[in-house]
Amino acid sequence: MPRVVVDVMPKPEILDPQGKAVLGALPRLGFVGVTDVRQGKRFELEFAGEITDAVLAEVHEMAETLLSNPVIEYYTVHLAEAEQPA
Amino acid sequence: MPRVVVDVMPKPEILDPQGKAVLGALPRLGFVGVTDVRQGKRFELEFAGEITDAVLAEVHEMAETLLSNPVIEYYTVHLAEAEQPA
Repeated sequence: MPRVVVDVMPKPEILDPQGKAVLGALPRLGFVGVTDVRQGKRFELEFAGEITDAVLAEVHEMAETLLSNPVIEYYTVHLAEAEQPA
Repeated sequence: MPRVVVDVMPKPEILDPQGKAVLGALPRLGFVGVTDVRQGKRFELEFAGEITDAVLAEVHEMAETLLSNPVIEYYTVHLAEAEQPA
């Protein structure tokens, strides 16, 4: 099934408490070297048909109206590569 | 700054109520053609130094112990490409 991925991240100037919590936890777990963490959302949309430019345009509209809050978040849309569960 | 991305998604056999809520909202907003939605998390980790294989191995360990719940989620690790905010 063809899939489109929408990544939604907090804008750089927006405070990200979830990311900060992860950043604070890392050294306590023995991980050093990470200077910043941002946490956002990932949506995988599955389509019945082919992914055309018109479909991608519609996904951009979904991302803007439903999946993200454009005031505080930005998003990127891309086709899903075949990923293997880790 | 070099960045590593960790994508965490619910395993296929795990119920995903957030994704189902999005899937249900799409037709009400006039979007058709989406057959399934899965919602997960995206972490962007920023490092001070270079991203070596040792660093990536450590990110895998972070993903397994802190960023994901391996019982119900799987994760993928990859280097961040230069992305433009949309």
